[in-house]
Amino acid sequence: MRAITIPEPGGPEALVWDEVPDPVPGEGEVLVEVVASAVNRADLLQRQGFYDPPPGASPYPGLECSGRIAAVGPGVAGWTAGDEVCALLSGGGYAEKVVVAAGQLLPVPEGVAIDRAAALPEVACTVWSNVFMIAHLRPGETLLVHGGASGIGTMAIQLAKAVGAKVAVTAGSKEKLDFCAGLGADILVNYREQDFVEEIRAATDGAGADVILDNMGAKYLDRNVRALAVNGRLAIIGMQGGVKGELNIGALLGKRAAVTAASLRARPAGEKAEIVAAVREHVWPLIAAGHVRPVVDREIPMREAAAAHRVLEESGHIGKVLLTLP
Amino acid sequence: MRAITIPEPGGPEALVWDEVPDPVPGEGEVLVEVVASAVNRADLLQRQGFYDPPPGASPYPGLECSGRIAAVGPGVAGWTAGDEVCALLSGGGYAEKVVVAAGQLLPVPEGVAIDRAAALPEVACTVWSNVFMIAHLRPGETLLVHGGASGIGTMAIQLAKAVGAKVAVTAGSKEKLDFCAGLGADILVNYREQDFVEEIRAATDGAGADVILDNMGAKYLDRNVRALAVNGRLAIIGMQGGVKGELNIGALLGKRAAVTAASLRARPAGEKAEIVAAVREHVWPLIAAGHVRPVVDREIPMREAAAAHRVLEESGHIGKVLLTLP
Repeated sequence: MRAITIPEPGGPEALVWDEVPDPVPGEGEVLVEVVASAVNRADLLQRQGFYDPPPGASPYPGLECSGRIAAVGPGVAGWTAGDEVCALLSGGGYAEKVVVAAGQLLPVPEGVAIDRAAALPEVACTVWSNVFMIAHLRPGETLLVHGGASGIGTMAIQLAKAVGAKVAVTAGSKEKLDFCAGLGADILVNYREQDFVEEIRAATDGAGADVILDNMGAKYLDRNVRALAVNGRLAIIGMQGGVKGELNIGALLGKRAAVTAASLRARPAGEKAEIVAAVREHVWPLIAAGHVRPVVDREIPMREAAAAHRVLEESGHIGKVLLTLP
Repeated sequence: MRAITIPEPGGPEALVWDEVPDPVPGEGEVLVEVVASAVNRADLLQRQGFYDPPPGASPYPGLECSGRIAAVGPGVAGWTAGDEVCALLSGGGYAEKVVVAAGQLLPVPEGVAIDRAAALPEVACTVWSNVFMIAHLRPGETLLVHGGASGIGTMAIQLAKAVGAKVAVTAGSKEKLDFCAGLGADILVNYREQDFVEEIRAATDGAGADVILDNMGAKYLDRNVRALAVNGRLAIIGMQGGVKGELNIGALLGKRAAVTAASLRARPAGEKAEIVAAVREHVWPLIAAGHVRPVVDREIPMREAAAAHRVLEESGHIGKVLLTLP
């Protein structure tokens, strides 16, 4: 088969479409013939040599895909060859075929085209695990999502609205904020022109956000703590603004607040399967009912993955960038 | 009645035993004739003028007491005059009488003398709410308690052992560590001579602590994050080592860990009542069964509260320092 390989870490041009050996499904795994994958920020770090795949994972990039089951390994129940699926991967999605643990498979949701289903696993699992399983967002609470127009952001807005929460977003352009409003976002903050702490407070009668989903890390840490409500939960899922930041413990204590940080990729298979099962139970029906949909910025042929990485690096996209196979 | 007042903030001598008006129980409150109160670090801050009582609270120090119900206000069910009780207070425990919301009352536990029951409410409610309700310590997990010989520490060791957890403690002397061992602590770290991060890792096959109960705040923040296990929870309840510290978000994210901070005193009455009810359900039976006991360093007459504050400031005590009325 062919896959995107990284012979030497570097810029987008480091991604090389090459012939590689077919993977073989082991105990509890299935082989998926890939229809589409999607680009995640972690792929850009992996390409640069900053984010090695966890032990046992495919060396090729790609944390999610959609496709059809080509073969089923021993000990797999509930899935058969030909099933249309999408999957949360530990790597290897930028390829014609990929092996995945059966616990990380999801059916292509009702009403979603098979290629577009590749836009769902990472964002659905990341948002559900962080905003709902860890931070326990409840109906009537306010969620602040940084990067509201990203793949994660567009899923977070839709899921939070679907469960009856109020949603605030930050983004860097009017176009992105308009898009977020179209998905249901209630409070729109242009971070280039406005202070999100002030805007969130003003829009919540001074209370602040009950849950914050953050991809910035250090750069936003102090402001996020200031923007939290009493009993607030800050869920950090990315560190685009740095790794180490000053935490005002006094402010946190005064609010009885929590800071959590988690990534999906490093979780053991059992935890991933638990999250995937929760997503199938809670998120898939919302998609089938039309309340939540994949948001796709564009589709780019997989062999041109370098172009797709450039799109993410320029940050002008809205939703997910997909990599498709002919 | 008489109470310890603070005419001017300052050292221990700022505490003045004086004649003050009797408090009157309002709707949902009871009047308690105090037998004993106990000293908390927050009282020392209040005495210095750094910790004003929350709105509506008594101006006198004292966050807990034991005694007998002297009068019951309107709308109170389940309690009658003469009942022997202990109580979590928002203030006013250093006095002959105090008014308390009925939801913050607990019966004196079976087998505990009424004066010693004053050692229980703050530590039981703080440990139960932070270690169990917020951090969800589970059987088989490892709890690290800083200041293992303090009132909080001695309760945390006993409760964690009672639910089947492994317990590590830090303390500053062999005498204190020996006492902790007597209460069941499995891992003993003299923080003056040893690095608790290394000791915890060595004692847990490199895994780290699942839950850390911390009273140091900024000074220990980085080391606490390093000492946490995967899926670990750092529960901060004090800031004796400073308010602002550097948080390594990358380390937190790699461990999928959480930092929480909470104080009991600032919580609204409803949350306090919820915690008190949980303590009565989960902790009181362990006391009645003899698995958990109040640890009292000494009893000092309440009018000599200044001497009691000096004991806490010197940090040589083990367990709680009580203030008694004749």
